[in-house]
Amino acid sequence: MRVSRLFMATQREIPADAEIPSHQLMLRAGLIRKCASGIYAFMPMGWKAYRKVENIIREEMDRAGAQELIMPALLPAESYQASGRWDKFGPEMFRLNDRGGRQFCLGPTHEESFTEAVRDTVRSYKQLPVTLYQIQHKYRDEKRPRFGVVRAREFVMKDAYSFDVDEAGLDKSYDAMYHAYRRIFDRLGLDYTIVDADSGAMGGSGSQEFMVKSPVGEDGICFCDACGYAANEEKAACPVPGKKEEDLKQINKIHTPDVKTIEELIAFMNTTPDKFVKTILYDIDGRIVAVMVRGDREINETKLSNLYDATEMTLASFGDVERITGAKVGFAGPVGLKEKIEVIVDNEVSVMSNFIVGANETDYHFENVNIGRDFTPDRIVDIRNAVEGDPCPKCGQPLKMARGVEVGHIFKLGTKYSDALGCVYLDKAGKENSMIMGCYGIGVSRTLAAVIEQNHDDDGIRWPRIVAPYEVVVCPTKVNDEENMGLAEKVYEDLLKAGIDVLLDDRNERPGVKFKDWDLIGIPLRITVGRRASEGIVEIKNRTTGETSELTADEAVKEATAVKE
Amino acid sequence: MRVSRLFMATQREIPADAEIPSHQLMLRAGLIRKCASGIYAFMPMGWKAYRKVENIIREEMDRAGAQELIMPALLPAESYQASGRWDKFGPEMFRLNDRGGRQFCLGPTHEESFTEAVRDTVRSYKQLPVTLYQIQHKYRDEKRPRFGVVRAREFVMKDAYSFDVDEAGLDKSYDAMYHAYRRIFDRLGLDYTIVDADSGAMGGSGSQEFMVKSPVGEDGICFCDACGYAANEEKAACPVPGKKEEDLKQINKIHTPDVKTIEELIAFMNTTPDKFVKTILYDIDGRIVAVMVRGDREINETKLSNLYDATEMTLASFGDVERITGAKVGFAGPVGLKEKIEVIVDNEVSVMSNFIVGANETDYHFENVNIGRDFTPDRIVDIRNAVEGDPCPKCGQPLKMARGVEVGHIFKLGTKYSDALGCVYLDKAGKENSMIMGCYGIGVSRTLAAVIEQNHDDDGIRWPRIVAPYEVVVCPTKVNDEENMGLAEKVYEDLLKAGIDVLLDDRNERPGVKFKDWDLIGIPLRITVGRRASEGIVEIKNRTTGETSELTADEAVKEATAVKE
Repeated sequence: MRVSRLFMATQREIPADAEIPSHQLMLRAGLIRKCASGIYAFMPMGWKAYRKVENIIREEMDRAGAQELIMPALLPAESYQASGRWDKFGPEMFRLNDRGGRQFCLGPTHEESFTEAVRDTVRSYKQLPVTLYQIQHKYRDEKRPRFGVVRAREFVMKDAYSFDVDEAGLDKSYDAMYHAYRRIFDRLGLDYTIVDADSGAMGGSGSQEFMVKSPVGEDGICFCDACGYAANEEKAACPVPGKKEEDLKQINKIHTPDVKTIEELIAFMNTTPDKFVKTILYDIDGRIVAVMVRGDREINETKLSNLYDATEMTLASFGDVERITGAKVGFAGPVGLKEKIEVIVDNEVSVMSNFIVGANETDYHFENVNIGRDFTPDRIVDIRNAVEGDPCPKCGQPLKMARGVEVGHIFKLGTKYSDALGCVYLDKAGKENSMIMGCYGIGVSRTLAAVIEQNHDDDGIRWPRIVAPYEVVVCPTKVNDEENMGLAEKVYEDLLKAGIDVLLDDRNERPGVKFKDWDLIGIPLRITVGRRASEGIVEIKNRTTGETSELTADEAVKEATAVKE
Repeated sequence: MRVSRLFMATQREIPADAEIPSHQLMLRAGLIRKCASGIYAFMPMGWKAYRKVENIIREEMDRAGAQELIMPALLPAESYQASGRWDKFGPEMFRLNDRGGRQFCLGPTHEESFTEAVRDTVRSYKQLPVTLYQIQHKYRDEKRPRFGVVRAREFVMKDAYSFDVDEAGLDKSYDAMYHAYRRIFDRLGLDYTIVDADSGAMGGSGSQEFMVKSPVGEDGICFCDACGYAANEEKAACPVPGKKEEDLKQINKIHTPDVKTIEELIAFMNTTPDKFVKTILYDIDGRIVAVMVRGDREINETKLSNLYDATEMTLASFGDVERITGAKVGFAGPVGLKEKIEVIVDNEVSVMSNFIVGANETDYHFENVNIGRDFTPDRIVDIRNAVEGDPCPKCGQPLKMARGVEVGHIFKLGTKYSDALGCVYLDKAGKENSMIMGCYGIGVSRTLAAVIEQNHDDDGIRWPRIVAPYEVVVCPTKVNDEENMGLAEKVYEDLLKAGIDVLLDDRNERPGVKFKDWDLIGIPLRITVGRRASEGIVEIKNRTTGETSELTADEAVKEATAVKE
């Protein structure tokens, strides 16, 4: 491709609303274009890189025996109503009516469609197992779309679904996908961790996430160097600590005026945050619930949401808090609250004694509160976030924390969808059984962003060769000089013939301008045809290592061709 | 691929609502699956064929210098409001709101998105021309989805848009697309006609449609063997015939009781339909208009809609007809009507004399009506459908008619969108000008159906090799016989190694069952390993020609490999 004909959309400034490097660089390099909040177009350069990621995924899915098809994005409500997810998805699902008033949604994920297709096609155990997949646009009306294509409202997902006659079959299908995913992320050169995503289970194999490590990742990862345990922070189990025996002291109401934050309270009481227990009120599908964690802990909203199988969960409104506690916000506590609403206590709080809580009275707290004596929780559960140094739930050694971007998720579904939608097969004895399903997703557009997140420097992207939009750019420094341009044309033609994705920068621009563009876009190899063109000598520069060397044009072509994966 | 592992969804019965061969065969062969009215999934076998069509299109677009990108399908209302198409699209546009109440549509076509992307990227004439394209799902809430993927509500389109500095540039860009389209449809082996789609123009080059001839095509094509003129029936110009001079007779009201149809009226009056003029009332965006054509003619609703730049057009309601004419439906006529509503007269009617019309009075008609004397039309225009034998608008020879499926459309847009959306460039003198645009579409999923429409027989599909989901199927007749199955495996492996898309039918089924499946699905070559397996002899059968021959296994592999494209 000649650069004079290339649709290039690079920009010099860092876009204001782009918070993370991959988002900034995808916009600056002109790979994507924002069309609306969380909705992006891929421009030609970005689309070329995207398609290389897609092809690697397709190759590995096919190699693993999965069969590609494509489902519609516009789906009738009925399937989702049958599975119960029409209501479950809540406002995250884009919904619309057709001209006849029939309800549709834009598919957020396609368990229902695949289950129905297999139900209507497969009769006998002889036709199983089968794993089907698609690479397709998905739609989720995210509350907070951000980070460019990392958390978008329209995005591309590879979703696969396996159908087996029994658990042993599911294990095999799951394993095939597990290994395919490893090959995909290995080929992309990503540094990733596979984490346990099975809520509460200890190293279970029911669900795993593929996390690309990144300091700006949206997900927290807990891992243990001692035993290899790794889990999504959202899911990492927090065991009950041992109880320190302490004499129960007399409960005591304290006047705490002008104390608005936890920090102020701690200073006022001259104590430490672990002596304090926060009581936070949530509105879970219209019902108000009080949740209690230690003063220095955070409530894990995923665990809370799972506990209630919630569709919509928010902090309770100020009005609700004041009505229920009888006090201003900031003074909620468990004493006397139980008669009014359910009280959920984190398992760590359950072993504390003589702690401080709000008194449900403006400007007052209680000290020396104790469970059992002063209030009785409705449930004691693991409801907090794990933090660095917490004991590993598997071996007890201190956990470490990192951040990551979830690029893949594999999941043993069991019979949830096959039961709901009647997806059965006849076994050898002619008896009907529900198929055992697994589902397997890769965020394709997000994976592209993850590659950039792990491969960039101050000047721009440093594409791994395998997904670079173009592998080589040939830069003549003087396009109007016959010798210079002639040599550049020759190198370009030779590389084209060798099947290399190559650009010829035939723009009449200063070398500095050209170099800046290619460093930003991140083409792996730059061949500069400059002052030694008359000798047939060019410079070859590796974008990632920064290494340069002077070679004859033929040697440069040979080198650029040799390193092709 | 081993057939025992293949997700096959063939069905024996012809689906009730499938009217045309391609729709029936795509369902019976399990290529597609209906998810809702006009909404289909592509099953693995169909998706493989689809992707081959897509790749041919992509190759030819790239060869023509167009650059691929992808726009979102979910688009904010603002762009379409700016171009005026938000209202214009009417109920054909799927619309929805996001969780914040912002209006979106599902893109029916993407002129706006491409224009905005180019507007925000291109500054100077130096960056032009550029042609961009995408292969993407489109959404149109068709009033009457039918014929499977031929007229669907979610479908795949390749849409390209060119941007030039002047008309000469547009001509060049248009020409490049014209030739790319010819290569695409030639490579697919389609029998197609390129028709003039420029309303009213004589052989103009402003817009052309690529029509695949098919007896069940939705579109009518008029063509002239004498001069090569070809046009969509919707657009074919109908010239004014010569006027036969006739004495004007006295207008006369006739009682025509119990006459309900035109046929009955003609019988009652003992005349011919060309002596009669129909007056039909339309509701065009809320305004009632009377349209008059000769009794044996049909009103061309495309011409009528274009005349009024209509958004919604239907026949007037019975209530409106009775209110305006003062008579029951069936007795509308022009005399006295003009004071109430606009009267549009077909140019053929304008040269008629002494004709019969409704009298705007139940059970009465007028005979010997004449324009000018008895009523004055508001407009005399070409508003009828051309029919077989009509004079060619170019050379006057009789037109022929055929039916076709529109698979491609190329169109010179000019500055309609660049003016509306401010898509300008700076010329050499530093002056701002609107870019000159063209747009170019191919219905990708529809093209696949057109290939089937032209390649099938009573037993099923006869795929051209280039788009067949699999090129060869190897059928052992006895899968439990070691010799038979061993030879089949060898042929299969040899073909796999040669890069052929090959199936091994390892199902334990009777040969007749297998043959029926592959004839239906239409695999171009079948290699049967049967009774002469012990001699190393197999049978090779060509699905399209029906030719069979017995060959050694190696010869069969050689033949199957040699005919590749």
